Amino acid sequence: MPPRPLLAALLLVLTLWCLLFVSVWVWPQLRVPPSFARANMSTSFVPVTPESDFPIQNLPYGVFSTKTNDKKRVGVAIGEFVLDLSVIATEGLFEGFDAGCFNEPALNSFMAQGSKAWATARATIQKLLSADVPTLRDNAELRQKALIPMQNVIMHLPAKIGDYTDFYSSREHATNVGVMFRGKDNALQPNWLHLPVGYHGRASSVVVSGTNLRRPRGQLQADRADPSKGSVYGPCRILDYELEMAFFVGPSNNLGDPISIDKAEEHIFGVVLMNDWSARDIQKWEYVPLGPFGAKNFGTTISPWVVTLAALEPFRATPSFGPEQQPAPLPYLFDANYAKGTYDIKLDVALKPENDTESYVITKSNFRNMYWNMKQQLAHHTVTGCNMQPGDLLASGTISGQTDDSLGSMLELSWQGTREIPLGSSGQVRKFIQDGDTISVKGYCQGNGYRIGFGPCEGKILPAHE
Amino acid sequence: MPPRPLLAALLLVLTLWCLLFVSVWVWPQLRVPPSFARANMSTSFVPVTPESDFPIQNLPYGVFSTKTNDKKRVGVAIGEFVLDLSVIATEGLFEGFDAGCFNEPALNSFMAQGSKAWATARATIQKLLSADVPTLRDNAELRQKALIPMQNVIMHLPAKIGDYTDFYSSREHATNVGVMFRGKDNALQPNWLHLPVGYHGRASSVVVSGTNLRRPRGQLQADRADPSKGSVYGPCRILDYELEMAFFVGPSNNLGDPISIDKAEEHIFGVVLMNDWSARDIQKWEYVPLGPFGAKNFGTTISPWVVTLAALEPFRATPSFGPEQQPAPLPYLFDANYAKGTYDIKLDVALKPENDTESYVITKSNFRNMYWNMKQQLAHHTVTGCNMQPGDLLASGTISGQTDDSLGSMLELSWQGTREIPLGSSGQVRKFIQDGDTISVKGYCQGNGYRIGFGPCEGKILPAHE
Repeated sequence: MPPRPLLAALLLVLTLWCLLFVSVWVWPQLRVPPSFARANMSTSFVPVTPESDFPIQNLPYGVFSTKTNDKKRVGVAIGEFVLDLSVIATEGLFEGFDAGCFNEPALNSFMAQGSKAWATARATIQKLLSADVPTLRDNAELRQKALIPMQNVIMHLPAKIGDYTDFYSSREHATNVGVMFRGKDNALQPNWLHLPVGYHGRASSVVVSGTNLRRPRGQLQADRADPSKGSVYGPCRILDYELEMAFFVGPSNNLGDPISIDKAEEHIFGVVLMNDWSARDIQKWEYVPLGPFGAKNFGTTISPWVVTLAALEPFRATPSFGPEQQPAPLPYLFDANYAKGTYDIKLDVALKPENDTESYVITKSNFRNMYWNMKQQLAHHTVTGCNMQPGDLLASGTISGQTDDSLGSMLELSWQGTREIPLGSSGQVRKFIQDGDTISVKGYCQGNGYRIGFGPCEGKILPAHE
Repeated sequence: MPPRPLLAALLLVLTLWCLLFVSVWVWPQLRVPPSFARANMSTSFVPVTPESDFPIQNLPYGVFSTKTNDKKRVGVAIGEFVLDLSVIATEGLFEGFDAGCFNEPALNSFMAQGSKAWATARATIQKLLSADVPTLRDNAELRQKALIPMQNVIMHLPAKIGDYTDFYSSREHATNVGVMFRGKDNALQPNWLHLPVGYHGRASSVVVSGTNLRRPRGQLQADRADPSKGSVYGPCRILDYELEMAFFVGPSNNLGDPISIDKAEEHIFGVVLMNDWSARDIQKWEYVPLGPFGAKNFGTTISPWVVTLAALEPFRATPSFGPEQQPAPLPYLFDANYAKGTYDIKLDVALKPENDTESYVITKSNFRNMYWNMKQQLAHHTVTGCNMQPGDLLASGTISGQTDDSLGSMLELSWQGTREIPLGSSGQVRKFIQDGDTISVKGYCQGNGYRIGFGPCEGKILPAHE
């Protein structure tokens, strides 16, 4: 028998070798299917240009149909294609969550499944689209069924929106509006720095990009300076856009049980662009004391592709980006990772007149301009016990920056109609939206050689009914 | 040949006899099944006391399940029973509309079918329940399946509510609140007499009678008199009810196409009782400038039975009941049948303390106290083109009358907490709602020997979370 110290040393070496073997070879084999192991996740076999909104790093979810198959189902955008996830699910390529949800006409069931299911689905989709993985790449028949050229799809609302809420979380926007209406000294209301002010919006009139909207009619103050003169009925004369983003809620909370700020991110599925069309003259007359109503409920446009928080992860704002929060929020609103709670998303708004071939960018802003982040909005919304449901939509409010070209509405750009907004060097100008104008919101995060884009968010204004 | 005048007279007499024959005997036979002809529609074979909420003249719709069959389906209330319409539909006893909707867990599909389907369904149900019609009365097996004792059913929300809107249409309530907050001279805002002021509410937290609600927590102004002192976090201290009624929308309109006032009634399916619970201190701090938010979104209670406009028809208010509208509304809001556009519905609110066996009525009001009627609310809501969907819920706002005992909220009854509200002769008093209090709203129309009642609308307040 060898001496005891030698035996001990031998056992130690053997144990170490075993650990090494398990960690380097067995463990990865168990975690991913062999064909996926060591796949390059940063490039797809589907061609993607550096300016594309939809590289393999993005993989936003949407609901689509085609002319030849009008069934609404779930897809992800990749380059100039849509990957039909209902086909992938039917082929049995998803594991670890209920992929039947991709056969549904809305993302609500997938949203309800929560962050573990989202991560599993994303990992599988990323691998299927990877340049190194043959499963889809080398199966012409499956590719033919599952990859649909984007020009052949019709996009629909991504979810059945139960409730829609609009916040008012850009300090610059709230200040600008306050200065216009109440003067510099009382620009921000006393509550503004203490809570994310918001209101319940109209869910039924949230429409997907590409839906044209009719200029609303309604009641307008008869004499602009004197409300005691009553009102007249007519088409809105001061029609505006509001540059916003909005997030979809994932798992629900029970009525009576708030979502705490440290759990809030688990309830956020993803983000879209939004144009919160606003009839300023209708709003002015109606909104005291219960808030905006007809001024907003004639239409709200969102982009069809929902960009997940996983795709936005590399673009969290760094502390120097975010505004400081002073006074410190109450504990239920205090976010230890406040600055990182928002994202560096470049945004712009362009206006295209009816008979023009060009669009003119009139606003350049950034989502990181928000004072209250999404987690804080969700924590505040539910602090009373209000119950969220999968597919609920919570919007940021107008996202204005600190410079003159970063104002998120024409109300601010034209300073209540007192100055003209030039449309590039075309010689055309606007103060507010004219009939036939198309408003487009765009947004993207700039990565290293790729972009996480949001796709289109646009709509044209049709003349009011006679 | 007889002389011509005689022939003409003979022909005339024959023709008149034919007409009489057709109108008195043939026509009624063609219109209704023989067994239903000449049935007495004012009494049912199901026993109904004169004080019952649910005589054969009412027939409100609701969604229910039982302990032995947890499938949610549609029923109507009759006396102390629920008639299971899914059974009646399966038996093939409905004709002339799609009765499959009664197998669904919500009334939305039935609401969508419109007034012709509603009238057909009501006529059939009324006949089936009539004392003179043997179809159900004499079929013990069918009765056993279709008539369920009310104590055995669990009631659910009657519809999937897409959007919920709350108006502010009682002049007395708006004036009282205005006097408290702005003084007598500026009680009504300049817009109030020109349009039905309203705001979008939270649909997800509308709950059915019997659901207990937790006292909300939220932000409260730190110093009641000085908003510049900021806020504190804590449980609501000034919790209130609001006595309201609400109507469900039937057929939808397309986005962009308003519902005109003369078509509005065709889009109203029926009416429920509502308690719009309100956290007054949360509201005070948050509501400027975008309206009530957390103060209202923790819960809104409705009664489970939807009373149709057909059942309310005999109880239209007469012109002397309704307040006059001065100034005359703009043409899109002008209702030539204004006074008859509301209904004589007696309402009361009772409070039952936790350890008390009795409920104490603290408000007696009437739905006819509304200044803006339901048609005007619907026309105004859609004037901008806002699209309604079947199952949308539009509430009246607090219904206060002109007398001290007809005030629809504790804010008014206690005049902002400056006076005590006695609970009958029990010696107990309240200024606002205490933990454990149950608030019950009741309502009925008094007919000749019968009542059109609304059933229960109640909820208990549980203590706030620790």
